[in-house]
Amino acid sequence: MKDPVYKLIELTGTSTTSIEDAVDKAIKRAHETVKNLCWFQVVETRGNINKGKVEHWQVTIKVGFTVEG
Amino acid sequence: MKDPVYKLIELTGTSTTSIEDAVDKAIKRAHETVKNLCWFQVVETRGNINKGKVEHWQVTIKVGFTVEG
Amino acid sequence: MKDPVYKLIELTGTSTTSIEDAVDKAIKRAHETVKNLCWFQVVETRGNINKGKVEHWQVTIKVGFTVEG
Amino acid sequence: MKDPVYKLIELTGTSTTSIEDAVDKAIKRAHETVKNLCWFQVVETRGNINKGKVEHWQVTIKVGFTVEG
Amino acid sequence: MKDPVYKLIELTGTSTTSIEDAVDKAIKRAHETVKNLCWFQVVETRGNINKGKVEHWQVTIKVGFTVEG
Amino acid sequence: MKDPVYKLIELTGTSTTSIEDAVDKAIKRAHETVKNLCWFQVVETRGNINKGKVEHWQVTIKVGFTVEG
Amino acid sequence: MKDPVYKLIELTGTSTTSIEDAVDKAIKRAHETVKNLCWFQVVETRGNINKGKVEHWQVTIKVGFTVEG
Amino acid sequence: MKDPVYKLIELTGTSTTSIEDAVDKAIKRAHETVKNLCWFQVVETRGNINKGKVEHWQVTIKVGFTVEG
Amino acid sequence: MKDPVYKLIELTGTSTTSIEDAVDKAIKRAHETVKNLCWFQVVETRGNINKGKVEHWQVTIKVGFTVEG
Amino acid sequence: MKDPVYKLIELTGTSTTSIEDAVDKAIKRAHETVKNLCWFQVVETRGNINKGKVEHWQVTIKVGFTVEG
Amino acid sequence: MKDPVYKLIELTGTSTTSIEDAVDKAIKRAHETVKNLCWFQVVETRGNINKGKVEHWQVTIKVGFTVEG
Amino acid sequence: MKDPVYKLIELTGTSTTSIEDAVDKAIKRAHETVKNLCWFQVVETRGNINKGKVEHWQVTIKVGFTVEG
Repeated sequence: MKDPVYKLIELTGTSTTSIEDAVDKAIKRAHETVKNLCWFQVVETRGNINKGKVEHWQVTIKVGFTVEG
Repeated sequence: MKDPVYKLIELTGTSTTSIEDAVDKAIKRAHETVKNLCWFQVVETRGNINKGKVEHWQVTIKVGFTVEG
Repeated sequence: MKDPVYKLIELTGTSTTSIEDAVDKAIKRAHETVKNLCWFQVVETRGNINKGKVEHWQVTIKVGFTVEG
Repeated sequence: MKDPVYKLIELTGTSTTSIEDAVDKAIKRAHETVKNLCWFQVVETRGNINKGKVEHWQVTIKVGFTVEG
Repeated sequence: MKDPVYKLIELTGTSTTSIEDAVDKAIKRAHETVKNLCWFQVVETRGNINKGKVEHWQVTIKVGFTVEG
Repeated sequence: MKDPVYKLIELTGTSTTSIEDAVDKAIKRAHETVKNLCWFQVVETRGNINKGKVEHWQVTIKVGFTVEG
Repeated sequence: MKDPVYKLIELTGTSTTSIEDAVDKAIKRAHETVKNLCWFQVVETRGNINKGKVEHWQVTIKVGFTVEG
Repeated sequence: MKDPVYKLIELTGTSTTSIEDAVDKAIKRAHETVKNLCWFQVVETRGNINKGKVEHWQVTIKVGFTVEG
Repeated sequence: MKDPVYKLIELTGTSTTSIEDAVDKAIKRAHETVKNLCWFQVVETRGNINKGKVEHWQVTIKVGFTVEG
Repeated sequence: MKDPVYKLIELTGTSTTSIEDAVDKAIKRAHETVKNLCWFQVVETRGNINKGKVEHWQVTIKVGFTVEG
Repeated sequence: MKDPVYKLIELTGTSTTSIEDAVDKAIKRAHETVKNLCWFQVVETRGNINKGKVEHWQVTIKVGFTVEG
Repeated sequence: MKDPVYKLIELTGTSTTSIEDAVDKAIKRAHETVKNLCWFQVVETRGNINKGKVEHWQVTIKVGFTVEG
């Protein structure tokens, strides 16, 4: 595959513990249906708050993977 | 589903009448194939012009929905 | 007041009907506590979706008002 | 005209009623002097406030039209 | 409260340990005076350096909360 | 189809020769599975380098196509 | 105060003479009610025009100050 | 003129002395052909350098003026 | 002309062959009516697609030229 | 040094564990050759993926340090 | 080198013929002093005009390379 | 030097008096080690505050200079 073509999809992972964990969960979920994930980039970091504490970190990422030729 | 993962897709809805109607039409169309739509955000508002009048409002949105675990 | 100073606050108005109504509601609410509102600018337009329809338009605006000298 | 060239101009339309009406008024005015308007894109949405109500919606758009060859 | 209005404030939390901890501290502090915090979004991540090590993570967030009607 | 709805997907095409060729390859690949592609916009232009020469141009585009009603 | 929390507010200062003077006036006014101002950043520089001359420079800044623990 | 329409043009003023002077010169020049200038906003501030000193400040502004009905 | 003033106009050039050719065509067309063009900057690169191939590259540029004193 | 001048350099740190660790590694490496590092700001957060897991967090930062007079 | 650190530098390459050639020339020049260049990203595309034709394409890129441990 | 290559570096100049003076000081300092500085562009304008007054204007600029062939 000399000149690969990649597709990018956008996902929001969530976690009660950390930004990294939210990203991991989004990638893990994407990996269930797309096997050749290559890279990601963080698009936005937000979260919801409950009683003065972060309830869920919500991290939106773009994930790129090779499209089979 | 303690830590949900969301997917975002990008759509352009069009309407001869209003921005809101263009958004409604894009969401209505997405709902035909994806049932659990959660939120949207407007990315861009444009339109084409015919004889000095707006012919179609073209509103691009991102729509987020939960990915089944 | 030769050289006025303005303060800007950021609000999100919501509405089940339109973008304009969401902005109106945010400004109406701000006017209850700040009387000299001068201008606004739209920062972001989003919304939540329920059963394939927009439930609430959520429009974030910055509102500027004169600070008494 | 195989390879058309377009010019873009920037206008701010105003309206006491809606964003769409402000855009319509800017395009209608441009159409008085430029006949071949093709498309527009919204650049910014603002407004001025009087006594806690939106007095004028001010919507800045770019309008593209074909330049005669 | 059918059509809630939210206010957004901007805070910079700091921490010697992590980005998450800096966000937590900003939200915890805001919660002392505003009880109904709903969500946050990260605006900027910076820090100061001392002797080649991060001394403080400085994370700027916007925090949204409901305005009582 | 009076008020069409479009979907946008994001792709990265690659080429050893030029930006245009990278875009062509991404569109050609998308056309294999989606027939009614309408327009594209360039999002980012990057590349990898090997021994002081560009090895692959990597051009990320958004491609819009009509969604069947 | 090991891990300080800062709040940022947004102000528009105006001046008939210069950008620096507009910033000075906004900060001076903020200092009347908030004593521990730490830094500012310029967000936007605009102005109004009367008879072909700048009447007022309007400089919008964000000002950060420490929140008492 | 109940609902005015404005046009925005983009100009780069230059000056050997200051940013304000560069803006003044651009507005003064525009005023020679357009009488009803209303406002401006700074888009970019650059300059060229000669022998380690700023030779010309180059300030790009957008200027808005009312379009006669 | 010690302190020149420049005007910037925005054009979209189109070409069936390349980005450079689209820019060349826009500049060539502008040169027919404005003689003292100085520089350009690319604002956006898009295109329309027909049968899985780029039909027209559409490159939007800003072109700066000196305004006669 | 009454009016210090700072230089900013851009670095990408990488880590298999966390965003903070990637930043720490970039700063640690810069500290080997530049002793007076003062602050950093995160520019971009990305990473590469191997078998459905983040292999390396890649965090790009700008680092500022004082330039000796 | 398990966790590499990269440095990014910013260059403007110029060419009388094409965007690609301008990028190639910037990278070729950087390669004379830095051997392990890895990737680049296009930051801005501009050019100067002489007698209605592009004289030089000026393409600004960021180039990343590994910093020896 | 038919097709020059430029390098851009990023500096923050500081001044107790004005934005222009902060830029001048950064350029003057850069000129001590790099002789062929060509142009600059302002990236950010900030400052620190002491007792309700601007203590230092901090202006970040990119400076471009020709790289010897």
